[in-house]
Amino acid sequence: MPLPKRCVAEFLGTFWLVFGGCGSAVLAAKVLLTEGSTPINIGIGLVGVSLAFGLTVMTMAYAIGHISGCHLNPAVTLGLVAGGRFKAVEAIPYIVVQVAGAAAAAWVLFVIASGQPKFFIDTTAAGAFATNGFADRSPGGYSMQACFLSEALLTFFFLLIILGSTDRRAPGGFAPLPIGLGLTLIHLIGIPVTNLSVNPARSTGPALVVGGEALTQLWLFWAAPIAGAVLAGIVYRAVFSEESAPAAK
Amino acid sequence: MPLPKRCVAEFLGTFWLVFGGCGSAVLAAKVLLTEGSTPINIGIGLVGVSLAFGLTVMTMAYAIGHISGCHLNPAVTLGLVAGGRFKAVEAIPYIVVQVAGAAAAAWVLFVIASGQPKFFIDTTAAGAFATNGFADRSPGGYSMQACFLSEALLTFFFLLIILGSTDRRAPGGFAPLPIGLGLTLIHLIGIPVTNLSVNPARSTGPALVVGGEALTQLWLFWAAPIAGAVLAGIVYRAVFSEESAPAAK
Amino acid sequence: MPLPKRCVAEFLGTFWLVFGGCGSAVLAAKVLLTEGSTPINIGIGLVGVSLAFGLTVMTMAYAIGHISGCHLNPAVTLGLVAGGRFKAVEAIPYIVVQVAGAAAAAWVLFVIASGQPKFFIDTTAAGAFATNGFADRSPGGYSMQACFLSEALLTFFFLLIILGSTDRRAPGGFAPLPIGLGLTLIHLIGIPVTNLSVNPARSTGPALVVGGEALTQLWLFWAAPIAGAVLAGIVYRAVFSEESAPAAK
Amino acid sequence: MPLPKRCVAEFLGTFWLVFGGCGSAVLAAKVLLTEGSTPINIGIGLVGVSLAFGLTVMTMAYAIGHISGCHLNPAVTLGLVAGGRFKAVEAIPYIVVQVAGAAAAAWVLFVIASGQPKFFIDTTAAGAFATNGFADRSPGGYSMQACFLSEALLTFFFLLIILGSTDRRAPGGFAPLPIGLGLTLIHLIGIPVTNLSVNPARSTGPALVVGGEALTQLWLFWAAPIAGAVLAGIVYRAVFSEESAPAAK
Repeated sequence: MPLPKRCVAEFLGTFWLVFGGCGSAVLAAKVLLTEGSTPINIGIGLVGVSLAFGLTVMTMAYAIGHISGCHLNPAVTLGLVAGGRFKAVEAIPYIVVQVAGAAAAAWVLFVIASGQPKFFIDTTAAGAFATNGFADRSPGGYSMQACFLSEALLTFFFLLIILGSTDRRAPGGFAPLPIGLGLTLIHLIGIPVTNLSVNPARSTGPALVVGGEALTQLWLFWAAPIAGAVLAGIVYRAVFSEESAPAAK
Repeated sequence: MPLPKRCVAEFLGTFWLVFGGCGSAVLAAKVLLTEGSTPINIGIGLVGVSLAFGLTVMTMAYAIGHISGCHLNPAVTLGLVAGGRFKAVEAIPYIVVQVAGAAAAAWVLFVIASGQPKFFIDTTAAGAFATNGFADRSPGGYSMQACFLSEALLTFFFLLIILGSTDRRAPGGFAPLPIGLGLTLIHLIGIPVTNLSVNPARSTGPALVVGGEALTQLWLFWAAPIAGAVLAGIVYRAVFSEESAPAAK
Repeated sequence: MPLPKRCVAEFLGTFWLVFGGCGSAVLAAKVLLTEGSTPINIGIGLVGVSLAFGLTVMTMAYAIGHISGCHLNPAVTLGLVAGGRFKAVEAIPYIVVQVAGAAAAAWVLFVIASGQPKFFIDTTAAGAFATNGFADRSPGGYSMQACFLSEALLTFFFLLIILGSTDRRAPGGFAPLPIGLGLTLIHLIGIPVTNLSVNPARSTGPALVVGGEALTQLWLFWAAPIAGAVLAGIVYRAVFSEESAPAAK
Repeated sequence: MPLPKRCVAEFLGTFWLVFGGCGSAVLAAKVLLTEGSTPINIGIGLVGVSLAFGLTVMTMAYAIGHISGCHLNPAVTLGLVAGGRFKAVEAIPYIVVQVAGAAAAAWVLFVIASGQPKFFIDTTAAGAFATNGFADRSPGGYSMQACFLSEALLTFFFLLIILGSTDRRAPGGFAPLPIGLGLTLIHLIGIPVTNLSVNPARSTGPALVVGGEALTQLWLFWAAPIAGAVLAGIVYRAVFSEESAPAAK
């Protein structure tokens, strides 16, 4: 498939990841009913948001995997380059359209969310409009060091899952399930720490809408995921790849 | 398979989608226990309703996909026509039986729900009996414009998932998973906006039971999903289909 | 595989269905933490119980499907007989070991649950020890007629999913996913009505432990699921089976 | 694949199981928002923790199944030896690296959790830092006997699922789904009893961090899972394996 068509697929896929994942958090995480004097949340909570992020990737992996490979994430693209699975020269256009798709999705989400009269963004709150953050902008108040370690480690394992499940020796056709639900798992672990990124494009979209400290903290959500992803690419290639392994035991 | 048999399958499948999806919302979303003076919800909430809608489609896609293609949704049928995957001439009978199945399901659900002595429908409430609505009938009070955009956009991506995952180049046999769980994802995002349709038949069933404003708002839940679906069919065919792509890169 | 070995598999599988499904309800549905003066439920609720029941069937379908066919349910066995997929003469031994497995599981669950000092069964309460019931024993107080209709209808669709997804024309190997998660879906819909059976063996196990009205209401949870299942077998065979369909369209 | 490389895979996989599973419990199970004077939990609760544990295994089974077989659990390794599926001589190195991976994961999780200023471990509390326990350290106060029976029984069925779904006669490529989601199911049932182990390595990791009674109770979480697993290996081999079955019915 020619590069421009693959870039359209990456744009649409990353749009879906950010619109669906961040949208579920912004629109549906907290939906209160009042029962007598007690508020009850029937909203989707962190389980629902985790499921939503994972399903954006799973659905797109089956929908456009055969078109663009369905990276939807600059860290994934660079991890695949480090693992010898993707051409370095194509990483730049992929990353550009991923960020563009994420930004467009955040903007459309803002338009829809603004259709609720009471909607506003408290830009100083941790996790506002699904932004990622650390220290005072970490949902649970985790330190910068803990947030960096968490993002790098979770991205390392995300890439390990991607590299392993798409290995020629793994069963064919199943990879979108561990990759998508692996992202769900990652969210189940880490939302309270950084509001969970493992994806620089996903972090950039909402940060552009919110601005301020959401933007000044953005560096961590590029640095840590890319560090973890590239390390995973190097490790998988060196230790587990077919080229690394003798054919016979 | 002859058209009449396929129409039986579409009738049963759409019945299941509406009975199961709307039924989970009407019967099980809110189940309160009282603990001391505090009510606690052990019901399924929006996560459970989202899961239920998606699983109706996933289960039917494996059960009757080989019989009728398992559309269960006029917007899907028309999106497939636009994408060059379904004969226009057969769209009408498919849509007729889809609406009939949805209406029958809503009626049977009403019969079962009425078996609870305290059951009644507050026809003025947003989301009553799982109806869809906008503005004053939007669960979160979203404007008509936001509701239209949300429904059209979510249906656009629903069709992208369907067209992509059933593409000959995608891995065979897996399509019901992204399609069904994609519908779960779509519900995780958008229930607070419109109570989530992306399916004109699903909207029509409960609206026929509830009547009044649920019926007068029904136009949006035909127009927006069909607009999004047809656009997706056109885009996928033009940009991503095999006929659009040169065989070699 | 010889019948005795298949009966061992059915015994173990039905044990797992009842121990896992009813066990999740009895042990884990409600787990209260007290936060200040407010109790908070971090237990699994009806979503978790629904998931558990479905996963018992999904896991066993992959584990013993190749051994016994993994019915785990007298209604499934009889529905498959009606659909021409299972020998009538083998239905009796299958059903006997299914009920035995269910009874054994309920007894072991009772032993484990009794390891909690405060455990007791309020035998008059609806849904006590995961029993099924109607009218005064329906969790939501649904009438006998509504409960019968709900159980028959849900079992009808459960069998439609089973017959369709195991059809030779459906994609191979996937059937445990729609069948297992279909049972999850069925629980998401119907727990408040009857505490959800669609399986006479599953109803019999806990009823033997609880006794009293749980036993006198047991007839409905044999009659309604079997009625729905047999009807589905007849319909699928008559309308959708390969023998019913002309080879060419 | 040479044993050292397979041991690297087992180390990483067990790290992921403990970091992801225990991490979801420690970091995300309870996340309180205050709504007026009422605390609301939007954290992942026991459903989310159950899903997380299962998904660690599912994701790794697709990622490293083709490398090491993805045991991640001394009880699984020994159950496979008992079932004739794994060489006894390799069980020791596998178990050593599994425990090392679990210990490393618990330590890294402690480092990240400590990044939250208010973090501390109440070492006397049942389930502290995701440790397993019985009697006074059982989350629900279950007796030692009930806890032993629960762990042995659940591990028995876990191994039955593993042995059955990886049987040559089961559909190829699907096994990680019932195995991973089977572990989810097992957690949905048994967290209130023992905080759920079925895996001696998973129990050992957090116990090394917490110390005290968490360590003195560790014997049960080696003895019970291994007993259940070995019994399952013997039963499956004797009753259901191809060597046990006559070729023709």
